[in-house]
Amino acid sequence: MNDPILIKGNWIDTPEKEEFRLRKDHILLIDQGKIAGIFPKVPDEWKHLPLRDYSDHIIIPSFMDLHIHAPQYIQRGLGMDMELIDWLNLYTFPAEEAFSDPALAETIYRHFAKDLYRQGTLRASVFSTVHLESTRVLARCLEREGLRASVGKVNMDRNSSPGLCEDTTQSLKDTQAFVEEFRDNPRIEAIITPRFAPSCSPELMKGLSEIAGKYSLPVQSHISENLQEIDWVQELFPHSKDYTDAYDRCGMLDAPRTLMAHGIYLKERECERLKERGTRLIHCPEANLNLASGIMPVTRLLDWGLEMGLGSDVGGGQSMAMNQVIVRAVQSSKILSRLQPGNRKLLLSEAFFLATAGNGKFYGNCGFFSEGLDFSALVIEDPLGEEQGLEPLERLQRYLYSGDDRNIVERF
Amino acid sequence: MNDPILIKGNWIDTPEKEEFRLRKDHILLIDQGKIAGIFPKVPDEWKHLPLRDYSDHIIIPSFMDLHIHAPQYIQRGLGMDMELIDWLNLYTFPAEEAFSDPALAETIYRHFAKDLYRQGTLRASVFSTVHLESTRVLARCLEREGLRASVGKVNMDRNSSPGLCEDTTQSLKDTQAFVEEFRDNPRIEAIITPRFAPSCSPELMKGLSEIAGKYSLPVQSHISENLQEIDWVQELFPHSKDYTDAYDRCGMLDAPRTLMAHGIYLKERECERLKERGTRLIHCPEANLNLASGIMPVTRLLDWGLEMGLGSDVGGGQSMAMNQVIVRAVQSSKILSRLQPGNRKLLLSEAFFLATAGNGKFYGNCGFFSEGLDFSALVIEDPLGEEQGLEPLERLQRYLYSGDDRNIVERF
Repeated sequence: MNDPILIKGNWIDTPEKEEFRLRKDHILLIDQGKIAGIFPKVPDEWKHLPLRDYSDHIIIPSFMDLHIHAPQYIQRGLGMDMELIDWLNLYTFPAEEAFSDPALAETIYRHFAKDLYRQGTLRASVFSTVHLESTRVLARCLEREGLRASVGKVNMDRNSSPGLCEDTTQSLKDTQAFVEEFRDNPRIEAIITPRFAPSCSPELMKGLSEIAGKYSLPVQSHISENLQEIDWVQELFPHSKDYTDAYDRCGMLDAPRTLMAHGIYLKERECERLKERGTRLIHCPEANLNLASGIMPVTRLLDWGLEMGLGSDVGGGQSMAMNQVIVRAVQSSKILSRLQPGNRKLLLSEAFFLATAGNGKFYGNCGFFSEGLDFSALVIEDPLGEEQGLEPLERLQRYLYSGDDRNIVERF
Repeated sequence: MNDPILIKGNWIDTPEKEEFRLRKDHILLIDQGKIAGIFPKVPDEWKHLPLRDYSDHIIIPSFMDLHIHAPQYIQRGLGMDMELIDWLNLYTFPAEEAFSDPALAETIYRHFAKDLYRQGTLRASVFSTVHLESTRVLARCLEREGLRASVGKVNMDRNSSPGLCEDTTQSLKDTQAFVEEFRDNPRIEAIITPRFAPSCSPELMKGLSEIAGKYSLPVQSHISENLQEIDWVQELFPHSKDYTDAYDRCGMLDAPRTLMAHGIYLKERECERLKERGTRLIHCPEANLNLASGIMPVTRLLDWGLEMGLGSDVGGGQSMAMNQVIVRAVQSSKILSRLQPGNRKLLLSEAFFLATAGNGKFYGNCGFFSEGLDFSALVIEDPLGEEQGLEPLERLQRYLYSGDDRNIVERF
């Protein structure tokens, strides 16, 4: 989409999380992949441009998924009777070992990338495995599918299965090699990816922090997902004040762009510190339900002013469809508000914001429809809703709750 | 399927809820729609029969949905920011009023029946609206689609919107007319359907109880879904001990086959009474999340020995796909076990049982694969799982968590 083009439709987005913005029958001028203008009618000066008319449909920002494990694509729905630590040791680690074979990685990651695209997730921050070659394969598969992604070679040098446990120096070397290879790639950026504090020595994390600093790279990891995990971190880092402090002391919160998934049981001090550091917390409601981890108090954290986003956490989450993850975020908050009064419910617009404009803030130039931003959008069809005469905002609700990839008729 | 036929595949069912039963590469002999034999190899005497070979796939009992509102099919996902009473008054009742027009009913119910079939729900207990003619239309649509169903003309003679509020005598007359019309239908049975205690006068319920008794009909309604609703029932029935007693005194628990949806906040006395009367409680986890009603303590009720089943509760629930409802039941129980210790988690096999064998007990001759039972099954394909070499029980998990109607390649 480099030549200028006009697109007409019912545009829905959430520049502010408190409510949906609807611009009915508006026209966007797209030039060089960016939004160059928004008009209620085609201005005379642009009348010569080609126009794609989606007036019957709604158009929303494409989804972003800021926490997803590509190798766990083949593990969705399996072993969901376990909790985090058992699930990692008995299911996930053995499954990830197989990715020492780049040919297997090629097969699975091709499916994975196609499915992301199909579900309308056109930008993602992705965990690979510890394997350098397979991580390259993952990045190439995502690139070929036309997606934008932050891709992380996972680092783990302790408390892992033998097939995954890395030598600290080699882990840093491999990371550096991956980072160098994708330095100037327009679609793929490397992201520093210590798996989580229990599987990374302080030396490894300090080394990773140096690489992040040297190349100005973002960082992603997990925090405060499970009560047993939190106790374990305290044992492993006895001098740390808490889970956040364990990362902080190793320089893992130094990068200006940092993603931490989960954050269910954060203490007040941790929230303050994460806010100070500008760390973005990624809510993964589906995985938290499946692994019986608990429910993130998402509205309290939002109201506190923390930076937030949304992730599918495949394979802890079973679905890559961000519309389903949005619904699960709302449902989880409703249950929390019922069982632990003091937590307000998450609005549908807030959950939608997290998956689009909120996640977009991590990249800085996308996530809603305003002049100057990168253009990326999904055209949503709802034949029954159109027959019923539903309003655009009702059709959005219908799609988010009851729709699937078959409702996405165009992906920009 | 009246001529005898052999079907080969990997059969998975739950005659007991504690675990899945898998019979790999077994052959079922189907005759006159019933299971006439189950064999590890084709017996010589049946070698001449046609054989359908699904060895690559898994085969499960078709789903049943014992709580679903057909008119709310067009309301899925809408107004989900409200709780029960507001949602009924502001969204549901106005939407149901439109079904005074049988032509509209014909359009919507045709979609509804096709979608039920598509999702693999081949038997259901369905609420219509108060309208006699539209209820006939619903029954005929379900029949035409080849489904089996219990269909209820809804009764409400107070606390309803003006367009839905019936005259008590007329409500009983219309119910009787519907019952008479479908008396000998092989696929459709009438079910007595007082909406819920707040919208039914004691006189109406007593009259309905008489009709149920006279024609040996089942009964369906709602119980103990929402705290505000429970208080309201106590106000409306000041002499009743509790919600259960309000129904009990009006004869609504007399039918040997009674379905009560929800039951989130039942007291001990109510549980004992419902068990005594053999009332089947229908768990609707998705709707309970959406309307922030609470979470049914499903494992405590199961362990108590109550008869239980599962329902989508469309439109409170957004999805007719019972595999999704099964997953939501498991997820809800995990959260309850985390936030209210003392509640154990629901096993996946138990949730599956509820949607198949458990719901099947309401009909008495279906829900799993044993000799003499009615045969109804879904053939599930999982190309990726087959490529991965997943075991049949893993493929079932994958389908339940991550699959959809596209994985159902055959419906018997």
